Amino acid sequence: MSVQTLLLDFSIDPARLGDEIGQKTVFGQLETVLKEYIPNLILATELKLEGGSLKLLTGKKGSTVSVRLFDRGLVTVNIEYYKEENEEPLINLKCSKLLESSVRMSLDCERVKLFPTIKRGYKYDVYLTSSDDRLLEYDIDAVIFDEQSPFQRVQIVHSKTLGNMLVLDELQNISEADLIYTETLMQRGKESYEGKEIVILGGGDGALLYELLKEKPKYVWMLEIDEVVMTACNKYLRSICGDVLETRKGPNYEVIVEDCMLTVNKFIADGKKVDYIFGDLTDIPISESACGELWEFMITILNSSFKILKPNGKFMTHGNGATSPESLELYEQELAKLKPPVKYTKSKAFVPSFLEDWYFYHISFATTDNGDA
Amino acid sequence: MSVQTLLLDFSIDPARLGDEIGQKTVFGQLETVLKEYIPNLILATELKLEGGSLKLLTGKKGSTVSVRLFDRGLVTVNIEYYKEENEEPLINLKCSKLLESSVRMSLDCERVKLFPTIKRGYKYDVYLTSSDDRLLEYDIDAVIFDEQSPFQRVQIVHSKTLGNMLVLDELQNISEADLIYTETLMQRGKESYEGKEIVILGGGDGALLYELLKEKPKYVWMLEIDEVVMTACNKYLRSICGDVLETRKGPNYEVIVEDCMLTVNKFIADGKKVDYIFGDLTDIPISESACGELWEFMITILNSSFKILKPNGKFMTHGNGATSPESLELYEQELAKLKPPVKYTKSKAFVPSFLEDWYFYHISFATTDNGDA
Repeated sequence: MSVQTLLLDFSIDPARLGDEIGQKTVFGQLETVLKEYIPNLILATELKLEGGSLKLLTGKKGSTVSVRLFDRGLVTVNIEYYKEENEEPLINLKCSKLLESSVRMSLDCERVKLFPTIKRGYKYDVYLTSSDDRLLEYDIDAVIFDEQSPFQRVQIVHSKTLGNMLVLDELQNISEADLIYTETLMQRGKESYEGKEIVILGGGDGALLYELLKEKPKYVWMLEIDEVVMTACNKYLRSICGDVLETRKGPNYEVIVEDCMLTVNKFIADGKKVDYIFGDLTDIPISESACGELWEFMITILNSSFKILKPNGKFMTHGNGATSPESLELYEQELAKLKPPVKYTKSKAFVPSFLEDWYFYHISFATTDNGDA
Repeated sequence: MSVQTLLLDFSIDPARLGDEIGQKTVFGQLETVLKEYIPNLILATELKLEGGSLKLLTGKKGSTVSVRLFDRGLVTVNIEYYKEENEEPLINLKCSKLLESSVRMSLDCERVKLFPTIKRGYKYDVYLTSSDDRLLEYDIDAVIFDEQSPFQRVQIVHSKTLGNMLVLDELQNISEADLIYTETLMQRGKESYEGKEIVILGGGDGALLYELLKEKPKYVWMLEIDEVVMTACNKYLRSICGDVLETRKGPNYEVIVEDCMLTVNKFIADGKKVDYIFGDLTDIPISESACGELWEFMITILNSSFKILKPNGKFMTHGNGATSPESLELYEQELAKLKPPVKYTKSKAFVPSFLEDWYFYHISFATTDNGDA
């Protein structure tokens, strides 16, 4: 079952909607068109509103059509009806396009916009958003895994274009089409990991660990808190994580399942230092100021990480979408406050499953002297 | 000016909506939440409908809220209001997210979905669709060029992520971020164009001609019908087409502005044959069968093209989105009918401005003997 919402709107000369007679005429023309597409359509009620009017019609099978006429020359039409899973839509794609051209011709409008039918309450949600809160409809055709862990909602969905995709709390995380994400995060070809000691904070999908191990590091500690994420990825994202989430431990790596700060603090206490730290936890929060729990967490992580980094070491992390420059700038302001001081470079890559450009940060001590202080 | 449409829906235990009292209770809880976000909200009307009921509320500044309760355990809420360009939205992003969590908590729902606010009738349209008719919101922030040519509506819009983008009849065509498109179409690095004679059918954005000229061909004829497209691209897509649409003619190329079939037929009459032909016209139509004007046009183009192709020549073209396999198959069926017979290979690339994988075809004579027949 799902509810189908068809949104259509058009612009006409405001003079045509200027008075009640004008609105009646426009509505009459529209009603005639709508009746060709929706059986048993009748006017149920009408309201006069500030700046226009609203007519509500009902049709076959409890379908409703709300028509809003705005004095300023805009008309919105919202058609809504209930559809059983195997039932044919009341208005299919072909019909909706015919409806659009009928409206264009009958009403002689300058502009008509028909949205692809919005599906609501279906067994899987195909709508995700970009970092700047744009609406993106994915070609998701199955939910393969869906479990609430103690930390987040963990889903593996299947997209026709992207393959399997990890979605955490309704945010697209990584898909089988996203090698570029991991390669940009680790700066493959630009950084050398051979013989190096590396800490991954988070990284539960296993992709980063899997790719790093190909570069022959001395040792990798992966510190992930969420067992459910790893179970799901091990089963359904094998093409990006290989068997590292299955084995959990090898001659030069281990996955430690707990709050990453425990191991980091242990390293601090032991005076242990590593060559690379990957911040593969949450993204930079999108917010107006660097306040709140998430920012505090991120700043704590940064401060502690630099305490276990060798003077020439690097902290590598993903930032956020290129369309959210405000949040990136807040992050950079926080970096500027770190003591000892740090310097950084940025890289950008278009990440297929995000459908947008993403920024990555590579941070190191501003001077190696300070770094070891 | 624009109309803002906020869509929110949630699922609850159908037992809670099973009778009129239940529906009243759920609606009452929802109304209490909504009143916190929309000033002056009052119930204007209610209707009993097949499978549920509908309540219509009105609020400040002619805003309307339609609440549809479906017996099957789904509730949809559509909030709509008019907004002047410089006016603050009645419900901004932060408020809409608070509204979402208020609904989740107050109504104790299993699932709540809030869509990013849909903007309708704004001075530019940020919503485009994928080849399989999915809704995609682009970060378009300006319309730079908008003109109806004798053939199509020609727009250049600006996207924060993609730079300038050519949109023809509401279809995204090429952007400044799409070198991969042209390089996959021409199979750069796999095909050698040096010293070759090439015909481009269409290609009005100039990107293909510009890239081909870098490969030192003997001669390129570009046959484009739409002067308006070339004027727009020459001015606003310089980074992808260089100055080829400005000069229009050089020692080894010329742009002929007319129906491409005129030159193709002239070549046929003269017995002139070339090494490569690029079909850079319309995409493979998305349809249930290979019928209609567009398909006929495409088949005519194919048949004529092979008449001016050398035995070892190739016809290179873009197909369609990977999520529309039915249309790709129809195209392949048409290829199988061509006489003399042809063979083909396919390539796929993720095209940034399309936000999806796209297929490209490289077609040649099945045997060189037949090819010259």
